[in-house]
Amino acid sequence: MALDNSQVLTIGVDLGGTSLRIAAYSPDRGVLESVSLRTRLEAGPIAVVDDMCEAISKLLTQHANGRDCAGIGVGSPGPLELPAGRLHHPPNLPGWDGFPLLAEMEKRLRRPVILESDANAAVLAEYELGLGKELGIDSMCMLTLGTGVGNGIIFEGKLWHGSAGMGGEAGHMTVYPDGALCGCGNHGCLESCASATALVNSAERMISSGKAPGLALLKSDGRGLTAHSLAEAAKAGNVDAKKIYDETGRSLGICLAGLVNILNFPLYVIGGGVANSWDLLSPSIFEELERRSYVYALTAPGRAAAAGMPGGGTRVLPARLGAEAGLMGACILPVYSSAEYSSKPTWASA
Amino acid sequence: MALDNSQVLTIGVDLGGTSLRIAAYSPDRGVLESVSLRTRLEAGPIAVVDDMCEAISKLLTQHANGRDCAGIGVGSPGPLELPAGRLHHPPNLPGWDGFPLLAEMEKRLRRPVILESDANAAVLAEYELGLGKELGIDSMCMLTLGTGVGNGIIFEGKLWHGSAGMGGEAGHMTVYPDGALCGCGNHGCLESCASATALVNSAERMISSGKAPGLALLKSDGRGLTAHSLAEAAKAGNVDAKKIYDETGRSLGICLAGLVNILNFPLYVIGGGVANSWDLLSPSIFEELERRSYVYALTAPGRAAAAGMPGGGTRVLPARLGAEAGLMGACILPVYSSAEYSSKPTWASA
Repeated sequence: MALDNSQVLTIGVDLGGTSLRIAAYSPDRGVLESVSLRTRLEAGPIAVVDDMCEAISKLLTQHANGRDCAGIGVGSPGPLELPAGRLHHPPNLPGWDGFPLLAEMEKRLRRPVILESDANAAVLAEYELGLGKELGIDSMCMLTLGTGVGNGIIFEGKLWHGSAGMGGEAGHMTVYPDGALCGCGNHGCLESCASATALVNSAERMISSGKAPGLALLKSDGRGLTAHSLAEAAKAGNVDAKKIYDETGRSLGICLAGLVNILNFPLYVIGGGVANSWDLLSPSIFEELERRSYVYALTAPGRAAAAGMPGGGTRVLPARLGAEAGLMGACILPVYSSAEYSSKPTWASA
Repeated sequence: MALDNSQVLTIGVDLGGTSLRIAAYSPDRGVLESVSLRTRLEAGPIAVVDDMCEAISKLLTQHANGRDCAGIGVGSPGPLELPAGRLHHPPNLPGWDGFPLLAEMEKRLRRPVILESDANAAVLAEYELGLGKELGIDSMCMLTLGTGVGNGIIFEGKLWHGSAGMGGEAGHMTVYPDGALCGCGNHGCLESCASATALVNSAERMISSGKAPGLALLKSDGRGLTAHSLAEAAKAGNVDAKKIYDETGRSLGICLAGLVNILNFPLYVIGGGVANSWDLLSPSIFEELERRSYVYALTAPGRAAAAGMPGGGTRVLPARLGAEAGLMGACILPVYSSAEYSSKPTWASA
């Protein structure tokens, strides 16, 4: 499916609430150059789009020499209205509700811009360049654990958009019906249990209750409370930090068990910063999967072959591309969007 | 897709733990005749297959006159290993684990037999002859509330089997992580909250606690405790029976909210005997959907048009074909299986 034209250039943009990452990419040589800018949220969406398009134009000029620009791919926080290319109350981009990102970029760049949710960009990269390619499967589901929990689904070789461009929102599956309030208004969503934000909130609650002196110390010393510092503390033996990761893995396992039972895909991938602590998460993920999905219990890698199922069974793995998945996905969006790379969202179309 | 050959005859079988329903069907004239037999579970699977094949042969002889038999469709309790056609620890057919149903039937009938789970047969019928046809959509998800909770998924016009033939097991999605034990070994599955069995179990628990004298009376008089008698009691004003249906709707709403967020299909259908009490279930179903799925909240029928989404938005409706869906689906299986009617399960294939 990939264009094998060595003269092709694309630009990928990973638009985040904190930073803007932009890369020039060619299918034959990979990332040619990448830059990172602060996202000036306080200056509003127009200023951010100006920053972004200025950096894109510079990269295009520097790396054009004879290559055709196949387009600019953008992975954006959701929810997105597709194909219209507007944001819809994005919790991590305050003030961007209704902003016509696609139109504003195309107006400035006068080139085709392909917009996807950041989670869809990530799953496309894992499918085309990471675990999907490595395992040779055609359907997969990815959860991206960052500030929120993103979800992307590849269904028989195509990005699944759903009938309103809103498919793949497993981050808002209810895990605990009476759980913590989520930004979406529901209680107990996966996002409210397994995002980096949720991990820090759990630590704050434990500190407030006065029962986690080690975490209070972590908060007050230079390191501060982050998913990363909590992981370091857990690895160094802090039982409260360990418990937080254990509970996070448990909520992931409950959600994954549901996904395995519904979809019966061969591959589920966990990405985003929190997934860097795979060793802390995975014991409780697999414990819940075994308990709560008889489909998983029958088709787990070791057992699938014994039961006569071909291939490697149902795999649940950490992302191969790590934190680069979103940016890599944005880089390859223009290459794959020229083929039939996705289901057609019908939202806002005629 | 349907064959328009008026000379075609099929046989459909709805294999249940209590009764065996068998019909002769033609695409142009519908059901020509149907018979119902008791499922002699106590006599073992061979005896049941003998009964079934004897009845099928009679119907074939009576209705053949010049018509070609396109095959015999069977909807069976799951889980099934497909395409091998073996049952896999079916909770509602004790003693049938590993039974090669497909091979045993083909040996006796010497005609093509097409085997599907009963829930897949039901969703195929609703898609081709019921709500799917009426609404002109191409993807849908159906939950069948009976002794257990079955699930069937149509993905872009095809039955979704998943990579191991086990897709569409939303009946075993966890709704309440600490809920009642389910037959599958998990706690708090939808099946343990929303099947006919679960409704009766809830009533039994309330009676045991001594707090539901009205239900105790219902149990001891001639009517007995069934999903139907509980619905009648609720309609007559019994608050405990009402509460049971309300809680059932709530668990359905939580599960549906997850399905809507993941799949973003245009149609979700609730079938099976329990769905006959739609008016008792639907208030809490929609309350939970609105609260727990922002995708639903944005795309519910009244709002979808205002937001620029085409079509009728995300519909959640009771099955149009009622209790006939499973049998009708079995009848049309041979017609549709000749076309590319399903995703390919790879379980047990080369």
